Amino acid sequence: MVVVAILAAGKGTRMKSNLPKVLHSLGGKSLVERVIKSVEPFSPSRKLVIVGYKSEEVKTALDHVSELEFVEQTSQLGTGHAIQQLLPHLQAYNGDLLILNGDVPLLRTETLNNLLRIHKDNQNSCTILTASLANPQGYGRVFCDSDNVVQEMVEDKDCTPEQRENNRVNAGIYCFRWSDLAKILPHLKNDNAQKEYYLTDAVTQVGKVMAVDVEDDQEILGINDRLQLANANDILQNRIKEKWLLAGVTMNDPASITIDETVELEPDVIIEPQTHLRGKTMIKSGCHIGPGSLIENSQLAENVTVQYSVITDSFVETGTRIGPYAHLRGHVEVGSGCRIGNFVELKNSQLGDRTNVAHLSYLGDTTAGTQVNVGAGTITANYDGVKKHRTRIGDRTKTGSNSVLVAPITIGNDVYIAAGSTVTEDVENNALVIARSRQVIKPGWKRKTEN
Amino acid sequence: MVVVAILAAGKGTRMKSNLPKVLHSLGGKSLVERVIKSVEPFSPSRKLVIVGYKSEEVKTALDHVSELEFVEQTSQLGTGHAIQQLLPHLQAYNGDLLILNGDVPLLRTETLNNLLRIHKDNQNSCTILTASLANPQGYGRVFCDSDNVVQEMVEDKDCTPEQRENNRVNAGIYCFRWSDLAKILPHLKNDNAQKEYYLTDAVTQVGKVMAVDVEDDQEILGINDRLQLANANDILQNRIKEKWLLAGVTMNDPASITIDETVELEPDVIIEPQTHLRGKTMIKSGCHIGPGSLIENSQLAENVTVQYSVITDSFVETGTRIGPYAHLRGHVEVGSGCRIGNFVELKNSQLGDRTNVAHLSYLGDTTAGTQVNVGAGTITANYDGVKKHRTRIGDRTKTGSNSVLVAPITIGNDVYIAAGSTVTEDVENNALVIARSRQVIKPGWKRKTEN
Amino acid sequence: MVVVAILAAGKGTRMKSNLPKVLHSLGGKSLVERVIKSVEPFSPSRKLVIVGYKSEEVKTALDHVSELEFVEQTSQLGTGHAIQQLLPHLQAYNGDLLILNGDVPLLRTETLNNLLRIHKDNQNSCTILTASLANPQGYGRVFCDSDNVVQEMVEDKDCTPEQRENNRVNAGIYCFRWSDLAKILPHLKNDNAQKEYYLTDAVTQVGKVMAVDVEDDQEILGINDRLQLANANDILQNRIKEKWLLAGVTMNDPASITIDETVELEPDVIIEPQTHLRGKTMIKSGCHIGPGSLIENSQLAENVTVQYSVITDSFVETGTRIGPYAHLRGHVEVGSGCRIGNFVELKNSQLGDRTNVAHLSYLGDTTAGTQVNVGAGTITANYDGVKKHRTRIGDRTKTGSNSVLVAPITIGNDVYIAAGSTVTEDVENNALVIARSRQVIKPGWKRKTEN
Repeated sequence: MVVVAILAAGKGTRMKSNLPKVLHSLGGKSLVERVIKSVEPFSPSRKLVIVGYKSEEVKTALDHVSELEFVEQTSQLGTGHAIQQLLPHLQAYNGDLLILNGDVPLLRTETLNNLLRIHKDNQNSCTILTASLANPQGYGRVFCDSDNVVQEMVEDKDCTPEQRENNRVNAGIYCFRWSDLAKILPHLKNDNAQKEYYLTDAVTQVGKVMAVDVEDDQEILGINDRLQLANANDILQNRIKEKWLLAGVTMNDPASITIDETVELEPDVIIEPQTHLRGKTMIKSGCHIGPGSLIENSQLAENVTVQYSVITDSFVETGTRIGPYAHLRGHVEVGSGCRIGNFVELKNSQLGDRTNVAHLSYLGDTTAGTQVNVGAGTITANYDGVKKHRTRIGDRTKTGSNSVLVAPITIGNDVYIAAGSTVTEDVENNALVIARSRQVIKPGWKRKTEN
Repeated sequence: MVVVAILAAGKGTRMKSNLPKVLHSLGGKSLVERVIKSVEPFSPSRKLVIVGYKSEEVKTALDHVSELEFVEQTSQLGTGHAIQQLLPHLQAYNGDLLILNGDVPLLRTETLNNLLRIHKDNQNSCTILTASLANPQGYGRVFCDSDNVVQEMVEDKDCTPEQRENNRVNAGIYCFRWSDLAKILPHLKNDNAQKEYYLTDAVTQVGKVMAVDVEDDQEILGINDRLQLANANDILQNRIKEKWLLAGVTMNDPASITIDETVELEPDVIIEPQTHLRGKTMIKSGCHIGPGSLIENSQLAENVTVQYSVITDSFVETGTRIGPYAHLRGHVEVGSGCRIGNFVELKNSQLGDRTNVAHLSYLGDTTAGTQVNVGAGTITANYDGVKKHRTRIGDRTKTGSNSVLVAPITIGNDVYIAAGSTVTEDVENNALVIARSRQVIKPGWKRKTEN
Repeated sequence: MVVVAILAAGKGTRMKSNLPKVLHSLGGKSLVERVIKSVEPFSPSRKLVIVGYKSEEVKTALDHVSELEFVEQTSQLGTGHAIQQLLPHLQAYNGDLLILNGDVPLLRTETLNNLLRIHKDNQNSCTILTASLANPQGYGRVFCDSDNVVQEMVEDKDCTPEQRENNRVNAGIYCFRWSDLAKILPHLKNDNAQKEYYLTDAVTQVGKVMAVDVEDDQEILGINDRLQLANANDILQNRIKEKWLLAGVTMNDPASITIDETVELEPDVIIEPQTHLRGKTMIKSGCHIGPGSLIENSQLAENVTVQYSVITDSFVETGTRIGPYAHLRGHVEVGSGCRIGNFVELKNSQLGDRTNVAHLSYLGDTTAGTQVNVGAGTITANYDGVKKHRTRIGDRTKTGSNSVLVAPITIGNDVYIAAGSTVTEDVENNALVIARSRQVIKPGWKRKTEN
């Protein structure tokens, strides 16, 4: 049985932000939410989030996460002081307490599982996560015997030159037998320069303490400023992209590509440089995406190509070609074998198979059938200044260049709308529609010139 | 006299692909085609490609490469087994056999030339390519005397700790005196865990074997998964970009730029970030390209500027400015001193000098003269639903905003087309054309509002 | 008192350029201008720029920099020869001479200040800038005693193997007591392979010489080819981006972002990948910029969002959303709470608050009021073929889709312009304007088909 406590009370001064540090976003989720997600797979009996700075903002941001308990730390007097706030909440508790930091967002569930397992198998009073760093400067050092039992922990500044050679550092992640810790917590002292209560002081007063090295140093990266946030983002992206590369996705220049963890890709997808895949996006085999595209919360069926385009909240069927410079948004569905060309915006519209919207068009709130040809510059006037209306276009209909369809309007099947026409009334099947003036030529005309 | 054999029969399971591994693309060419191209400069007497997995697909993909012979290896039982398949094809052959891997695409011709030269000069029975790696883990080690004569080859897993210290590895590239190898091939054994026939077993049974170190370790990179494919792409791109930087091309942020090997650049070209140059593209001195542009199979004369645009299969004359957000495709020719502006698509069109198409236009199948001003929103309606027609515009003609030219149509010189006109009939020189309604104003109009 | 001399006479053969090397651009300024800017904070009494190759071009490029004196070095016979040219210009001079290279553009003012301070404090005859390099190959080595007094300087090629182990190198930046140097300069010899006069020869003939190590090796990078220019650009960009990250700016993928030194950012700005900020740009807190945007010489107030857009010479008020695929240029002012959507170009236009231009529009030379809705495809025809005219649109007016406003024209408040109308005459307040034909439907129409 394990209870998890997450330290999330700090301001994060070096972030230089109006936002509390733990709410900064990393790959689409806040730092603290990432930490919470990392413990969910082992179903802790309780999840206590210790909040302080802008606590209401933190609570609101975590509203959508279920089964959290918030513990208020009104003044921030150190990690030991933070954990002291748990005493009233865990009075009868008899299990273990896993203590995590809300600003250490890259720890893997596997690492925590391993820590918990070793803690239990060895019946430790405390187990701490450690890392062996190439450059341990600034970190507290952990000295162990050959069985990984901790002998001593020394702050970097208090190290002798010999001790400083030890590169095994304290990652600040602890699992305590709560009954042992609870006895010591009330007696922590703040007789140090910062006048803070440190949790490390408790470690040295409980029973058997063991250290467990993290497999990958990058996991223990704490976020204190935006440079570290950018680094964490890089690490996270490398994890994600390596996973998809090994799963059969081709990327040219992966360094320029970003992919959210929530994205699903099939093998034999090709992703060109400077492409960004976000949210609940699913891309099927044979798709060729980019360069320079952003796809968010969208599904692409097999063999779709997208180049220099933005697609959000949309669904595209097999073999359709999109871009360059197209924009699909607001629940768009495009059939198979379509061509959505340059300078085309589709908003809340549904297109049947083999329908083309190739140039300079805006279709909003439009339903079009199959094999429709939407001429260059065609626009659906869906907004009358008060509300939005729907345009319906039948199968095999062709709209002329620079035509306007003023919604609400229904155009039948096999209709031909002449170029330059503004169509305001419904059109039956098989009709030709013209709504323009005949041309008048004034020969021998001379352009007015200055003076 | 040298015959080249290229191993291209494997599936490449770790690629997780429907495509045979050797057909995956690297910088616009398949892996195996790169290997073939690397031997062409020394004109081997025969080029034998050993195919197996999806052999028809591999043969078809190499259809355009001349003078290849395909040798079928129906089951893939190891490198030795692959070379055994050559026995019937090289019965009377008396020269050398150079054995390359279809999935090792970065070997340079210079490296192979050097291998062949040393092989001949020393009258070796076999010469193998080696590399001294910082991290040789996983590779078979090669042990030589001070004259680079191979004494022993040991698989990584069979190495003693001392042997493991040797960082000279077998790159899997061999030149054999064919008569020596042919004698041994039939007697190779597969008494190993994988039940495969290994070519390395033959190496230890022929006469004098020498090792030649590759100059640049990166050349021997084999492609087994998409991560390695991405790395190979980086290496190739760095080679290409370093070449052009040293030849006088300025790049801001070269890491974000990709350039195909087939591209030609002159000195004093400036390439901005996130720009991609592909195919048979030629860019002359003084051009300023990017950011965010893709140019493919196109020629740009001196001092052209391109920003956030896509140009394919086109020719642009001196001093013309293109973009942001322009799209040229399908055999476009633009004269000198033109301005092709934002949200403009040109398709299969030819424009004379000092002609401007500055905003929101589509010109398809259009020939325009010099000093033409194509007004914002002008569209050539080139498609009548059945076929494409041509638009011709004379010199110094000006089309008004949102005008449509319905092809086939010919507009003379010095014509002025009024804004909003849809022009359907030919227009003589010096004419003014109007094809629109007069405006009607209804004063005191009140917008309908809800309820 | 210090006089600064900047060596800027060389051609820079390895740049392979028509442009003299020191005029190549790095982060928006020429190399030599960067060097000049680095000395301005300590107000040297004179700034002498030694020019030679294409000297007129160099002088013209520096026209805008005040208080420079140009000294001609007609033939380039070495650094000593270059400084000899100063003799007639500094005859009565009694202070120090700081000698800089026009192609070493990353030296920081702090470094030069430190060099000058040590030079004065120690009453040196000469003080040279040195660096301790991981790889000193190719550089002249500097040998000092424990007080940093120079004992010997040896060219790389003349070093003994032991001397070669010394990794302290001469950075080519000197401060001389001018009176000491002036005595020696006329007697320099060119008895070397290159027949050049070297300034290092003078160093060994003056009095006490001290060496000062640069803090950051990257500062002494000299630019000899475009690869080094690209590296210098990377270093400069890393400096700038690290500064802004630590100041509270969030960047996803900083490596893909470029920011000129002249840009000002507030905390809690978010910059997405592939974004470029240039010139005198100021972006306020809460703005979210990118991906794929270029902003130059523009001011963005709080909470503006920009996606895949180009903005130059413009001002955008709070909370306005721009893009994807918008283009603002030529003195545009956009009010607060506006929406500038896709395929929209604004040129020399001013828009009031809560005004929308959402799709496929060009507004040039236009003043629009508040809460205006510019319909999709609306274009202001600002150019009559001879000159540009202004369009004025009142508050709360709505233009229909594909309407054209032919300037000069004034549209009142609360006007409604019907879709497809070309408006050529002024419109009073509260009017409805229609300028289009009624639609004609020809039922049972059959599309012409081939044969």
